[in-house]
Amino acid sequence: MSLLVVGSLGIDTIETPFGRVENVLGGSATYIVTAASYFVAPIRLVGIVGGDFPKEYIDFLESREVDLEGLQIVKDGKTFRWGGRYQYDLNSRDTLFTELNVFEHFDPVIPESFRKTTHVCLGNIDPDLQRRVLEQIEKPRLVVGDTMNFWIKRKRKELLETLKLVDILIINDAEARELTNEPNLIRAAKAIIGKGPRMIIIKKGEHGALLVTERTVFSAPAYPLEMINDPTGAGDAFAGGFIGWLAKTDDLSEANCKRAVIYGSALASFCVEQFSLIRLKDLTSIEIHDRFREFRELSKFDEQDMP
Amino acid sequence: MSLLVVGSLGIDTIETPFGRVENVLGGSATYIVTAASYFVAPIRLVGIVGGDFPKEYIDFLESREVDLEGLQIVKDGKTFRWGGRYQYDLNSRDTLFTELNVFEHFDPVIPESFRKTTHVCLGNIDPDLQRRVLEQIEKPRLVVGDTMNFWIKRKRKELLETLKLVDILIINDAEARELTNEPNLIRAAKAIIGKGPRMIIIKKGEHGALLVTERTVFSAPAYPLEMINDPTGAGDAFAGGFIGWLAKTDDLSEANCKRAVIYGSALASFCVEQFSLIRLKDLTSIEIHDRFREFRELSKFDEQDMP
Repeated sequence: MSLLVVGSLGIDTIETPFGRVENVLGGSATYIVTAASYFVAPIRLVGIVGGDFPKEYIDFLESREVDLEGLQIVKDGKTFRWGGRYQYDLNSRDTLFTELNVFEHFDPVIPESFRKTTHVCLGNIDPDLQRRVLEQIEKPRLVVGDTMNFWIKRKRKELLETLKLVDILIINDAEARELTNEPNLIRAAKAIIGKGPRMIIIKKGEHGALLVTERTVFSAPAYPLEMINDPTGAGDAFAGGFIGWLAKTDDLSEANCKRAVIYGSALASFCVEQFSLIRLKDLTSIEIHDRFREFRELSKFDEQDMP
Repeated sequence: MSLLVVGSLGIDTIETPFGRVENVLGGSATYIVTAASYFVAPIRLVGIVGGDFPKEYIDFLESREVDLEGLQIVKDGKTFRWGGRYQYDLNSRDTLFTELNVFEHFDPVIPESFRKTTHVCLGNIDPDLQRRVLEQIEKPRLVVGDTMNFWIKRKRKELLETLKLVDILIINDAEARELTNEPNLIRAAKAIIGKGPRMIIIKKGEHGALLVTERTVFSAPAYPLEMINDPTGAGDAFAGGFIGWLAKTDDLSEANCKRAVIYGSALASFCVEQFSLIRLKDLTSIEIHDRFREFRELSKFDEQDMP
């Protein structure tokens, strides 16, 4: 199996009620590949950074066995930068600044050696670019896509075109409602299934995640963390754990997709424990496995005969 | 085992995006006893209504084997009336009117024959009244209590006194946060455990429910309903299913409390399918049992060895 990830790489400044970090590694692709790297190697990355992108971050990605052939480094350009501040309950955040820099003119070119890739994860970028990526891949076995409210508002038509090519859409609850104008989450998910994807994963933050197909619903709990330092990247860590498990196992059965949701949830739960990638980048297989099992305990109950 | 329920009985007018009903049976105690009646009989009810309370509603309660010895009927008084309108997403509602009527001077008197009751469910009424009820019961084995934001705001001190006497508190997510000034739900639940109850159930509506003890967390999914007609009484139906199961089985082990949460969730999911008690009052054991099993399927996943 092979996994290709396209998305942003950036330098973040993050404030939460529990601290502040400056110029740390960020971007959707970064979180996705780091989470997925616990399951597959090498991972093919397609993205763009400027000449100011610190060498230590390149070294880190290489240490996670990320194949950087598709990483464009614009020597005289600046890397995408984002600053955000989370409110006291961590459920809402204000963007302090967004400097697109080299990301503004990103044209994802898939290297020849990446064109036969079985598993593709489209991080949250312009839906036109997501589609351009897919045009360059020879019949991928699985396409997982992410998006956000920004594209739903500004590029709805283009997003709907991209959705036709996506097998599994990962989206949060507010976005699912916005995309479909449907307040009921299950109906919203089913409405999206009509537009292309055969499976929808709805991320609900502290309330866990739903996997919805035309006929079934699976409800994954959230890990009951008492301390969340920084929610940044949780959704991307989820996507990375999810597609990482699917690429590793090459099994798209519903039972295995449920496991993938739990691995995604596990990686997301580690991610938010510390700022940036601090926790996500230093996990062991045993820690991930143990957390998977904790998820089982969390939602397990047994039956007793009804009278 | 015996079960005593104290709470409001009322006549509701309800508007949702899907319809409107006028002068229908309502009140917290009504929903609680109806849900619990699938598990235990007779149920001892303590409440108050006016002379205008329709005989058909009395007949209905009797048909569910509710012992009405503790129901005060104020011949020349009027029954508590409430009118509410739900917004399009069903998550918020406006109170159109509240006429307390006889409920304003409700003084719950526990009949002699009710004073030895093993299981007590305190519906959402003034915490002073909840405490007065408990003073009249001889050492109940289990006290389950409900409350709401109104009492948290207006009678926090009195509520905290009552909590000392409650074994299991059922509360919704916003109320748990408000009561503790703690945005993290798990920490909020644990903060309440320090105040009396040894177990907290946090109802999260479309996101299911959490059972939290000092050492464990159990996450129950929500039933994926595509059509909710009327959310009124869902929390009370939950409480009724929950304590009904516990009273029936007389088993307070954690495993059995988890089952009780699922029965509560099942009854709540039926409740919201139709307006008022329309769906809740006509269930069969098989329907309840089947839904319990559907809840299992909803959150079930199996493991596979990690590499």
